Amino acid sequence: MKTFDVEVRVWLKPSVFDPQGHAVEQALHTLGFDGAQNVRIGKYMHLTVTGETEAEARKSVEQMCERVLSNPVMETYAYELKETVV
Amino acid sequence: MKTFDVEVRVWLKPSVFDPQGHAVEQALHTLGFDGAQNVRIGKYMHLTVTGETEAEARKSVEQMCERVLSNPVMETYAYELKETVV
Repeated sequence: MKTFDVEVRVWLKPSVFDPQGHAVEQALHTLGFDGAQNVRIGKYMHLTVTGETEAEARKSVEQMCERVLSNPVMETYAYELKETVV
Repeated sequence: MKTFDVEVRVWLKPSVFDPQGHAVEQALHTLGFDGAQNVRIGKYMHLTVTGETEAEARKSVEQMCERVLSNPVMETYAYELKETVV
């Protein structure tokens, strides 16, 4: 059984309004960071998964992303998976 | 004036308890993803910044991260910055 380090990023699709990103952008402008634009806020998740093979672990991560970690109607996800070096 | 694409990741320091990560881990186990462990949840932010040089843009992003995008007491951040190709 191998262990894999996984980093998942989830963000709203471009067509979906992001009120949190909008608020942060306003806050940045208020503090003088006028160059900050197009702020979008998503989630960043780190976890470890186990699997016999990398392909099996990837399949498992994709199912997690589709069913729990993201809302496929409004969000897109990407992940990176690396075998944990013991 | 150049424009840069910036991706910022912010996550809780390892010593800080992450109740959101804990809840997601439980949810994954309930759904049968028993191999998922050590779930930690952070933020993923995408923005564009402008600057005369890359060094200036990096300095600006680091200030944003310290002052707005993360809480340096509890969180750590990392970012990637790339010049936008027009």
